[in-house]
Amino acid sequence: MSTNDDAKRPAAIDLLRPAVRAMPGYTPGEQISDLVKLNTNEGAFPPSPRVMATLAAIADDTLRLYPDPVSARLRAAAGARFGVGADQILAGNGSDDCLTILYRGFLEAGERIACPWPTYGLYDTLAALQGAELVRVPFRQNGRRWDLPPDLGRQRAKMIILANPNNPSGTLVPVEDLRRLCDAQPTSVVVVDEAYVDFALGAGIDASMLPYLAQHPNLVVLRTMSKSYSLAGARLGLLFAAAPLCAELVKVKDSYNVNAITQAIGVAALEDRSYHEDCVRRTLDQRARVERELGALGWSWPESAANFVLVEIGERAEQIYGALKAEGLLVRWWHAPELRTKIRISVGNPDENDHLLAALKRLA
Amino acid sequence: MSTNDDAKRPAAIDLLRPAVRAMPGYTPGEQISDLVKLNTNEGAFPPSPRVMATLAAIADDTLRLYPDPVSARLRAAAGARFGVGADQILAGNGSDDCLTILYRGFLEAGERIACPWPTYGLYDTLAALQGAELVRVPFRQNGRRWDLPPDLGRQRAKMIILANPNNPSGTLVPVEDLRRLCDAQPTSVVVVDEAYVDFALGAGIDASMLPYLAQHPNLVVLRTMSKSYSLAGARLGLLFAAAPLCAELVKVKDSYNVNAITQAIGVAALEDRSYHEDCVRRTLDQRARVERELGALGWSWPESAANFVLVEIGERAEQIYGALKAEGLLVRWWHAPELRTKIRISVGNPDENDHLLAALKRLA
Repeated sequence: MSTNDDAKRPAAIDLLRPAVRAMPGYTPGEQISDLVKLNTNEGAFPPSPRVMATLAAIADDTLRLYPDPVSARLRAAAGARFGVGADQILAGNGSDDCLTILYRGFLEAGERIACPWPTYGLYDTLAALQGAELVRVPFRQNGRRWDLPPDLGRQRAKMIILANPNNPSGTLVPVEDLRRLCDAQPTSVVVVDEAYVDFALGAGIDASMLPYLAQHPNLVVLRTMSKSYSLAGARLGLLFAAAPLCAELVKVKDSYNVNAITQAIGVAALEDRSYHEDCVRRTLDQRARVERELGALGWSWPESAANFVLVEIGERAEQIYGALKAEGLLVRWWHAPELRTKIRISVGNPDENDHLLAALKRLA
Repeated sequence: MSTNDDAKRPAAIDLLRPAVRAMPGYTPGEQISDLVKLNTNEGAFPPSPRVMATLAAIADDTLRLYPDPVSARLRAAAGARFGVGADQILAGNGSDDCLTILYRGFLEAGERIACPWPTYGLYDTLAALQGAELVRVPFRQNGRRWDLPPDLGRQRAKMIILANPNNPSGTLVPVEDLRRLCDAQPTSVVVVDEAYVDFALGAGIDASMLPYLAQHPNLVVLRTMSKSYSLAGARLGLLFAAAPLCAELVKVKDSYNVNAITQAIGVAALEDRSYHEDCVRRTLDQRARVERELGALGWSWPESAANFVLVEIGERAEQIYGALKAEGLLVRWWHAPELRTKIRISVGNPDENDHLLAALKRLA
């Protein structure tokens, strides 16, 4: 076959769905192990010692054999931890997997999904992949609060999704507002992504929709073990919904979506409740300290209920992001017009925060 | 709100895509830990000691921080092992994840995918989920061989997929036939799922399409670590294709689809080449022994190039499956008319095979 012919041979890439070709793709936060990572909101403290002990005791047959396809022990532990039935829980390979399952389960090509904006960029990427239309409804900024947009429910959307606390703002919408949204939009699925809610609950705020699951048949709640449980590397998310819906969504997930090691250490993490509470408390102490010093430097940020703050820097934001990176400190900065004057800083452990605050004092 | 009203309230389940409601869902093989598992074709021997040592050395930060989203070290190790560039590899949460990525990447609702039949049931489930139409083209049974159906390429299918060796038959289609299929169908993606190919390669057969990847721009090859590497519990699959296609498919996968523990132990498994070769050789020895004794019992099966055999039992197949289960031995049996007279038996370790063969002698 001549080179000329080769040039004309179709390749598999030419057969991709046009929606995929057109997508920019989701850009995850940089994962650079040599730097102090304050850019992707992982937990600041190590996972529970019980997690490490469980990991050390993993048997070779746990690796050799297929995992439990429905993560039964893990779901039982999560049910006991969160006060819901195990049949109201579906476990995912991170809550990103739970999001994928929801999009694939509910959204036909051309259907609409609405979310307050700005928020977690993956909501957008997954809509593009599914051929669904994402309607971005700007948050109503109200001093240091970001309120639920009043017209969020008026977008004829099959699904309404929001992160609460929101990422990247850290702001919290009151549970009452979300319950009203669920009631007002009975023909939309309302997905509340509570990735960061443990930091709000730890501050004593009634911030979770989980206690109200049974009262809202159109509600789905997501949790992740990547943040307050310090298990981002292991990939474990939880989806909570009515039991019959969970049974249907099992058909959408990959058969063996959660690996056996993660199932085992997830149980250990959920059962070590006091360690988890202690990590949350220490994180809130560190956040208070970081906020004190950021305030002394003259900066402001929306009121955070999460383990990060979105600091309003102004025109120097990109420069400060770069200067911090040059000093070995990674924070998050985005080109997007609605975010380009801000940097998002995860709350680290005491040493990391020392390092961060010393650098910021020099740069401010 | 009264009970009457409640009965009329729409629930999220009513909003699911009709394709999802209509799906029966994929039924994974039973995972019952108390039984001798010869039903889901896992490797018979433990994972490499280097895997266990790597697992024991996992640091808490490996769990705490997000994994590398593109599994760079793992892909480098796989590239070195398989003689391709790391940019021609995409890592998945099991090869089931790789399959999901391919279906979501290539298939619009209503488009066709063709496969020889019977084969891995998940090919069907994923088509239903994507709203694509699966065309099942019966294998041409030719004595103990199952040949590629001559009309497989004439189905106007955007994707043609086949397992080679095939599951559940264990039969192997010659590489030359697959290369001819790729050449004859330049406007179809041809996906060759080589989950079991190491057992054919171990027997000295030129059975893999990987060496021919560069010559067929419409070819995608899948491998899994669940079988010959004994890592089914850890979930690790590999997709091989032209580098530009891999770059596009990264947009389709979940951002952090392979957890950090699995990335680390995957490297260890790939690098311990002599252990892997030894496991394959021991498996082939055990298969030869199982086949000898099955033949002495008067049974027959298609020629197997894999770590299992599909034994033709006749009308007693379901009864023998049940009797084995009652004795603590799990093999695979299906209701489907094309399979209901057969049982599929994974090749176990020597003790498991002793147990199996003793039971079969009593039952035959």
